[in-house]
Amino acid sequence: MPTVSAADLLASHFDAMPPVRALQPRVLGWADGRLRLGAPLAANVNDKGCAFGGSLVSLMTIAGWGVLALRLAEAGVEADLYVADSRVRYLKPVYEDLQVEAAAEDPAAAAALAAQVRAHGRAGLRVRAQVRLADGAVAAVLDARYVAIARG
Amino acid sequence: MPTVSAADLLASHFDAMPPVRALQPRVLGWADGRLRLGAPLAANVNDKGCAFGGSLVSLMTIAGWGVLALRLAEAGVEADLYVADSRVRYLKPVYEDLQVEAAAEDPAAAAALAAQVRAHGRAGLRVRAQVRLADGAVAAVLDARYVAIARG
Repeated sequence: MPTVSAADLLASHFDAMPPVRALQPRVLGWADGRLRLGAPLAANVNDKGCAFGGSLVSLMTIAGWGVLALRLAEAGVEADLYVADSRVRYLKPVYEDLQVEAAAEDPAAAAALAAQVRAHGRAGLRVRAQVRLADGAVAAVLDARYVAIARG
Repeated sequence: MPTVSAADLLASHFDAMPPVRALQPRVLGWADGRLRLGAPLAANVNDKGCAFGGSLVSLMTIAGWGVLALRLAEAGVEADLYVADSRVRYLKPVYEDLQVEAAAEDPAAAAALAAQVRAHGRAGLRVRAQVRLADGAVAAVLDARYVAIARG
Protein backbone atom coordinates (compact mmCIF):
# COMPACT_ATOMS: atom_id res chain seq x y z
CA MET A 1 0.00 0.00 0.00
CA PRO A 2 1.51 3.36 -0.97
CA THR A 3 1.89 5.88 1.82
CA VAL A 4 -0.69 8.21 0.32
CA SER A 5 -3.44 5.57 0.66
CA ALA A 6 -2.48 4.82 4.26
CA ALA A 7 -2.61 8.54 4.99
CA ASP A 8 -6.03 8.87 3.37
CA LEU A 9 -7.48 5.85 5.14
CA LEU A 10 -6.31 6.90 8.58
CA ALA A 11 -7.02 10.58 8.06
CA SER A 12 -10.67 9.84 7.34
CA HIS A 13 -10.89 7.61 10.42
CA PHE A 14 -9.25 10.19 12.67
CA ASP A 15 -11.33 13.01 11.27
CA ALA A 16 -14.56 11.12 12.06
CA MET A 17 -13.71 11.03 15.79
CA PRO A 18 -14.13 14.47 17.46
CA PRO A 19 -11.71 13.79 20.36
CA VAL A 20 -9.07 12.62 17.86
CA ARG A 21 -9.68 15.39 15.34
CA ALA A 22 -9.03 17.89 18.16
CA LEU A 23 -5.44 16.58 18.47
CA GLN A 24 -4.80 17.26 14.74
CA PRO A 25 -2.89 14.06 14.00
CA ARG A 26 -1.42 13.45 10.55
CA VAL A 27 0.19 10.40 9.01
CA LEU A 28 3.93 10.87 8.40
CA GLY A 29 4.70 7.40 7.15
CA TRP A 30 3.76 3.74 6.97
CA ALA A 31 6.45 1.23 5.97
CA ASP A 32 7.60 -2.19 7.15
CA GLY A 33 4.74 -2.42 9.63
CA ARG A 34 5.78 0.81 11.34
CA LEU A 35 3.38 3.77 11.46
CA ARG A 36 4.55 7.33 12.13
CA LEU A 37 2.16 10.11 13.17
CA GLY A 38 2.75 13.78 13.88
CA ALA A 39 0.68 16.37 15.74
CA PRO A 40 1.23 20.06 16.54
CA LEU A 41 2.16 20.89 20.13
CA ALA A 42 -0.33 23.81 20.11
CA ALA A 43 -3.30 21.42 19.90
CA ASN A 44 -1.89 19.17 22.63
CA VAL A 45 -0.43 21.53 25.19
CA ASN A 46 -1.04 21.45 28.94
CA ASP A 47 -0.90 24.10 31.67
CA LYS A 48 2.92 23.88 31.79
CA GLY A 49 3.54 24.57 28.10
CA CYS A 50 4.44 20.98 27.29
CA ALA A 51 2.35 18.15 25.87
CA PHE A 52 -0.64 16.93 27.89
CA GLY A 53 -0.23 13.33 29.09
CA GLY A 54 -3.68 12.41 27.84
CA SER A 55 -2.74 13.65 24.37
CA LEU A 56 0.37 11.48 24.37
CA VAL A 57 -1.73 8.44 25.33
CA SER A 58 -4.41 9.25 22.78
CA LEU A 59 -1.92 9.70 19.95
CA MET A 60 -0.02 6.53 20.89
CA THR A 61 -3.35 4.67 21.18
CA ILE A 62 -4.49 5.70 17.68
CA ALA A 63 -1.03 4.97 16.26
CA GLY A 64 -1.28 1.42 17.60
CA TRP A 65 -4.83 1.20 16.33
CA GLY A 66 -3.55 2.37 12.94
CA VAL A 67 -1.02 -0.45 12.76
CA LEU A 68 -3.84 -3.01 12.96
CA ALA A 69 -6.15 -0.99 10.70
CA LEU A 70 -3.55 -0.75 7.95
CA ARG A 71 -2.48 -4.41 8.21
CA LEU A 72 -6.11 -5.52 7.89
CA ALA A 73 -6.92 -3.04 5.12
CA GLU A 74 -3.96 -4.30 3.12
CA ALA A 75 -5.29 -7.84 3.50
CA GLY A 76 -8.85 -6.81 2.62
CA VAL A 77 -10.21 -7.91 6.00
CA GLU A 78 -13.03 -5.84 7.56
CA ALA A 79 -12.89 -5.78 11.35
CA ASP A 80 -13.67 -3.55 14.30
CA LEU A 81 -10.63 -2.75 16.41
CA TYR A 82 -10.64 -2.29 20.15
CA VAL A 83 -7.89 -1.44 22.61
CA ALA A 84 -8.14 -3.89 25.53
CA ASP A 85 -5.51 -2.60 27.91
CA SER A 86 -2.43 -0.41 27.93
CA ARG A 87 0.51 0.57 30.08
CA VAL A 88 2.06 4.01 29.71
CA ARG A 89 5.32 5.43 30.98
CA TYR A 90 5.92 9.16 30.75
CA LEU A 91 9.68 9.69 30.60
CA LYS A 92 10.30 13.28 29.48
CA PRO A 93 8.26 16.43 28.98
CA VAL A 94 7.65 17.29 25.31
CA TYR A 95 8.09 20.95 24.35
CA GLU A 96 7.96 20.41 20.59
CA ASP A 97 5.59 19.10 17.93
CA LEU A 98 4.74 15.45 18.59
CA GLN A 99 6.15 12.51 16.69
CA VAL A 100 4.72 9.07 17.41
CA GLU A 101 5.89 5.70 16.11
CA ALA A 102 4.06 2.40 16.51
CA ALA A 103 4.72 -1.20 15.49
CA ALA A 104 3.68 -4.67 16.62
CA GLU A 105 5.85 -6.09 19.37
CA ASP A 106 6.06 -9.36 17.42
CA PRO A 107 6.35 -8.94 13.61
CA ALA A 108 5.32 -12.58 13.08
CA ALA A 109 2.09 -12.04 15.04
CA ALA A 110 1.39 -8.91 12.98
CA ALA A 111 1.96 -10.83 9.75
CA ALA A 112 -0.50 -13.50 10.91
CA LEU A 113 -3.18 -11.03 12.07
CA ALA A 114 -5.38 -10.94 8.98
CA ALA A 115 -5.30 -14.72 8.50
CA GLN A 116 -6.25 -15.22 12.15
CA VAL A 117 -9.22 -12.86 11.91
CA ARG A 118 -10.33 -14.67 8.75
CA ALA A 119 -9.99 -18.10 10.37
CA HIS A 120 -11.31 -17.40 13.87
CA GLY A 121 -13.35 -14.20 13.56
CA ARG A 122 -11.01 -12.41 15.95
CA ALA A 123 -7.37 -11.96 16.90
CA GLY A 124 -5.29 -9.99 19.37
CA LEU A 125 -2.07 -8.07 18.81
CA ARG A 126 0.35 -6.32 21.13
CA VAL A 127 1.72 -3.00 19.91
CA ARG A 128 4.39 -0.70 21.26
CA ALA A 129 4.08 3.01 20.54
CA GLN A 130 6.57 5.71 21.45
CA VAL A 131 6.71 9.49 21.43
CA ARG A 132 10.12 10.50 20.09
CA LEU A 133 11.82 13.85 20.51
CA ALA A 134 13.66 15.52 17.63
CA ASP A 135 16.96 14.55 19.31
CA GLY A 136 15.96 10.87 19.18
CA ALA A 137 15.13 10.50 22.88
CA VAL A 138 11.99 8.59 23.88
CA ALA A 139 9.54 10.79 25.79
CA ALA A 140 6.74 8.26 26.39
CA VAL A 141 6.09 4.57 25.79
CA LEU A 142 2.77 2.76 25.45
CA ASP A 143 2.44 -1.02 25.42
CA ALA A 144 -1.08 -1.96 24.43
CA ARG A 145 -3.10 -4.97 23.47
CA TYR A 146 -5.68 -4.64 20.71
CA VAL A 147 -8.41 -6.99 19.58
CA ALA A 148 -9.73 -7.22 16.03
CA ILE A 149 -13.24 -8.65 15.58
CA ALA A 150 -14.45 -9.55 12.10
CA ARG A 151 -17.39 -7.45 10.91
CA GLY A 152 -20.70 -8.87 9.78
CA MET B 1 -13.67 23.65 50.00
CA PRO B 2 -17.21 24.04 48.63
CA THR B 3 -17.94 22.24 45.39
CA VAL B 4 -18.38 25.47 43.49
CA SER B 5 -14.76 26.51 44.17
CA ALA B 6 -13.43 23.11 43.17
CA ALA B 7 -15.44 23.33 39.97
CA ASP B 8 -14.12 26.80 39.22
CA LEU B 9 -10.51 25.88 39.91
CA LEU B 10 -10.56 22.76 37.74
CA ALA B 11 -12.70 24.29 35.01
CA SER B 12 -10.15 27.06 34.49
CA HIS B 13 -7.31 24.51 34.40
CA PHE B 14 -9.13 22.26 31.94
CA ASP B 15 -10.17 25.17 29.76
CA ALA B 16 -6.54 26.33 29.45
CA MET B 17 -5.53 23.02 27.84
CA PRO B 18 -6.81 22.69 24.24
CA PRO B 19 -6.75 18.86 24.14
CA VAL B 20 -8.71 18.76 27.42
CA ARG B 21 -11.14 21.53 26.48
CA ALA B 22 -12.04 19.49 23.39
CA LEU B 23 -13.37 16.69 25.64
CA GLN B 24 -15.75 19.15 27.40
CA PRO B 25 -15.20 17.86 30.93
CA ARG B 26 -17.15 19.36 33.82
CA VAL B 27 -16.85 18.88 37.57
CA LEU B 28 -19.83 16.99 39.04
CA GLY B 29 -18.59 16.78 42.60
CA TRP B 30 -15.68 16.84 45.03
CA ALA B 31 -16.19 15.36 48.50
CA ASP B 32 -14.24 13.12 50.87
CA GLY B 33 -11.23 13.09 48.54
CA ARG B 34 -13.31 11.75 45.64
CA LEU B 35 -13.63 13.77 42.43
CA ARG B 36 -16.40 13.18 39.90
CA LEU B 37 -16.24 14.48 36.34
CA GLY B 38 -18.71 14.24 33.47
CA ALA B 39 -18.30 14.69 29.72
CA PRO B 40 -20.70 14.41 26.78
CA LEU B 41 -20.40 11.31 24.61
CA ALA B 42 -20.68 13.47 21.46
CA ALA B 43 -17.32 15.13 22.16
CA ASN B 44 -15.67 11.79 22.90
CA VAL B 45 -17.09 9.38 20.37
CA ASN B 46 -15.13 6.99 18.16
CA ASP B 47 -15.83 5.39 14.78
CA LYS B 48 -18.11 2.78 16.40
CA GLY B 49 -20.44 5.23 18.14
CA CYS B 50 -19.03 4.58 21.61
CA ALA B 51 -16.43 6.47 23.62
CA PHE B 52 -12.89 6.69 22.22
CA GLY B 53 -10.35 4.87 24.40
CA GLY B 54 -8.02 7.87 24.35
CA SER B 55 -10.84 10.05 25.71
CA LEU B 56 -11.44 7.62 28.55
CA VAL B 57 -7.72 7.71 29.45
CA SER B 58 -7.56 11.48 29.14
CA LEU B 59 -10.60 12.03 31.34
CA MET B 60 -9.40 9.53 33.94
CA THR B 61 -5.92 11.12 33.82
CA ILE B 62 -7.27 14.64 34.48
CA ALA B 63 -9.61 13.31 37.18
CA GLY B 64 -6.61 11.81 38.99
CA TRP B 65 -4.70 15.03 38.41
CA GLY B 66 -7.65 16.91 39.87
CA VAL B 67 -7.52 14.88 43.08
CA LEU B 68 -3.97 16.09 43.74
CA ALA B 69 -4.70 19.63 42.52
CA LEU B 70 -7.65 20.03 44.89
CA ARG B 71 -5.86 18.47 47.87
CA LEU B 72 -2.93 20.85 47.39
CA ALA B 73 -5.13 23.88 46.73
CA GLU B 74 -7.05 23.19 49.94
CA ALA B 75 -3.73 23.13 51.81
CA GLY B 76 -2.46 26.27 50.08
CA VAL B 77 0.51 24.46 48.52
CA GLU B 78 1.62 25.51 45.01
CA ALA B 79 3.01 22.64 42.98
CA ASP B 80 3.28 21.38 39.43
CA LEU B 81 1.65 18.00 38.93
CA TYR B 82 2.88 15.33 36.56
CA VAL B 83 1.56 11.90 35.70
CA ALA B 84 4.48 9.45 35.84
CA ASP B 85 2.92 6.21 34.67
CA SER B 86 -0.47 4.61 34.28
CA ARG B 87 -2.13 1.31 33.57
CA VAL B 88 -5.52 1.21 31.87
CA ARG B 89 -8.01 -1.58 31.45
CA TYR B 90 -10.92 -1.12 29.06
CA LEU B 91 -13.75 -3.35 30.27
CA LYS B 92 -16.92 -2.27 28.47
CA PRO B 93 -17.83 0.01 25.58
CA VAL B 94 -19.51 3.27 26.68
CA TYR B 95 -22.55 4.36 24.67
CA GLU B 96 -23.63 7.12 27.05
CA ASP B 97 -22.34 10.39 28.51
CA LEU B 98 -19.17 9.78 30.49
CA GLN B 99 -18.94 9.72 34.26
CA VAL B 100 -15.50 9.48 35.85
CA GLU B 101 -14.60 9.06 39.51
CA ALA B 102 -11.11 9.35 41.00
CA ALA B 103 -9.62 9.01 44.48
CA ALA B 104 -6.25 8.21 46.00
CA GLU B 105 -5.60 4.50 46.45
CA ASP B 106 -4.42 5.20 50.00
CA PRO B 107 -6.42 7.90 51.86
CA ALA B 108 -3.61 8.29 54.42
CA ALA B 109 -1.10 9.04 51.67
CA ALA B 110 -3.50 11.58 50.19
CA ALA B 111 -3.94 13.26 53.57
CA ALA B 112 -0.14 13.51 53.94
CA LEU B 113 0.46 14.83 50.40
CA ALA B 114 0.56 18.56 51.10
CA ALA B 115 2.77 18.17 54.19
CA GLN B 116 5.18 16.00 52.19
CA VAL B 117 5.47 18.54 49.38
CA ARG B 118 6.08 21.28 51.97
CA ALA B 119 8.73 19.23 53.78
CA HIS B 120 10.56 17.61 50.85
CA GLY B 121 9.68 19.75 47.81
CA ARG B 122 7.98 16.79 46.15
CA ALA B 123 5.73 13.82 46.77
CA GLY B 124 4.10 11.01 44.84
CA LEU B 125 0.56 9.68 45.01
CA ARG B 126 -1.20 6.72 43.44
CA VAL B 127 -4.72 7.35 42.21
CA ARG B 128 -7.39 5.04 40.86
CA ALA B 129 -9.89 6.47 38.38
CA GLN B 130 -12.87 4.69 36.89
CA VAL B 131 -15.42 5.30 34.18
CA ARG B 132 -18.82 4.26 35.52
CA LEU B 133 -21.91 3.46 33.51
CA ALA B 134 -25.35 4.71 34.57
CA ASP B 135 -26.18 1.15 35.70
CA GLY B 136 -23.20 1.21 38.09
CA ALA B 137 -20.92 -1.05 36.04
CA VAL B 138 -17.25 -0.09 35.66
CA ALA B 139 -16.33 0.50 32.00
CA ALA B 140 -12.64 1.40 32.41
CA VAL B 141 -10.07 1.58 35.19
CA LEU B 142 -6.89 3.64 35.38
CA ASP B 143 -4.24 3.18 38.05
CA ALA B 144 -1.77 6.03 37.86
CA ARG B 145 1.10 7.49 39.79
CA TYR B 146 1.42 11.27 39.99
CA VAL B 147 4.25 13.44 41.23
CA ALA B 148 3.81 16.88 42.79
CA ILE B 149 6.83 19.22 42.68
CA ALA B 150 6.78 22.42 44.72
CA ARG B 151 6.82 25.56 42.61
CA GLY B 152 9.44 28.30 42.91
